Amino acid sequence: MHETIASIMSRRSVRRFTSDPVERQYITMILEAARWAPSGLNNQPWKFIVVQKRETIEKLAGCTRYSSIVKGAGVLIAVFLDTSLMYDRTKDVQATGASIQNMLLASHELGLGAVWLGEILNNKEQVNLILETPESFELMAVLAIGYPDGNTPKSSRKELHEIAFEELYGNQWR
Amino acid sequence: MHETIASIMSRRSVRRFTSDPVERQYITMILEAARWAPSGLNNQPWKFIVVQKRETIEKLAGCTRYSSIVKGAGVLIAVFLDTSLMYDRTKDVQATGASIQNMLLASHELGLGAVWLGEILNNKEQVNLILETPESFELMAVLAIGYPDGNTPKSSRKELHEIAFEELYGNQWR
Repeated sequence: MHETIASIMSRRSVRRFTSDPVERQYITMILEAARWAPSGLNNQPWKFIVVQKRETIEKLAGCTRYSSIVKGAGVLIAVFLDTSLMYDRTKDVQATGASIQNMLLASHELGLGAVWLGEILNNKEQVNLILETPESFELMAVLAIGYPDGNTPKSSRKELHEIAFEELYGNQWR
Repeated sequence: MHETIASIMSRRSVRRFTSDPVERQYITMILEAARWAPSGLNNQPWKFIVVQKRETIEKLAGCTRYSSIVKGAGVLIAVFLDTSLMYDRTKDVQATGASIQNMLLASHELGLGAVWLGEILNNKEQVNLILETPESFELMAVLAIGYPDGNTPKSSRKELHEIAFEELYGNQWR
């Protein structure tokens, strides 16, 4: 009944993919989802580079410990903060987080699996060189996307009463 | 057909609300959506305080230029980064952005309207005092939520080819 909420709650990070290619129109839908994220002052500080060429995927795999995930993906989407558009770093970084979440949700709805890779930020300058970005681009994440191979991974979250309060800090939400 | 993607694309910031109260079970569903956001190392660095008491809403309204939006809301959700759980500021701030986006999407699906307020961060210390938070809580946003009053607001986004590229920066995604 509440499809979006159900989708939010059933989405999991998927790290193993089949060799099936990801349809181009699906990638466009994922990018459209990113495009419609909210941002402070509607400044839309994000940029995306879609990578599908084997050679480039191999190069990016060399930038992270999670090279096997990267190599197994049908498509990578590198997400950047375009710092030339920045007005408030915290709010702009939040906005990229919102756009990433939209892409993860869209992927899930399309039957794709995806994982948000952050460890690759340790080599963000190298990623910029590989993708020939302007200096103003700051890598925020790489999403690895493909058709899921295997069972839905398990995950967990803290209970609501541990993270949500009523009126004041300390009154647990029940 | 693709309900979640449709919801992502049809959501708009809603700043005018009717006086109808927001059902408690809907607030719980919104918080559940936030809870299931992804975070780096699954550290779930977020905390939420739900505010519905008139007196507290009035106090928070005094912390922002957008006091009329805050006063008109049926419920406010203050979103914090719990810096005691932080492992990487950029990634943790992104995670709060993902959790906020989940709440906005859940609100939209429930027939509610919502707006992400960032300007109130100018007075984040005052918000912490009002809500009696620990010092480790850093305000990330306040969401104003209620039943929409009036027509769906309009908004716009840059075209996809302005923000998305193929394989390398410069090759516009078409």
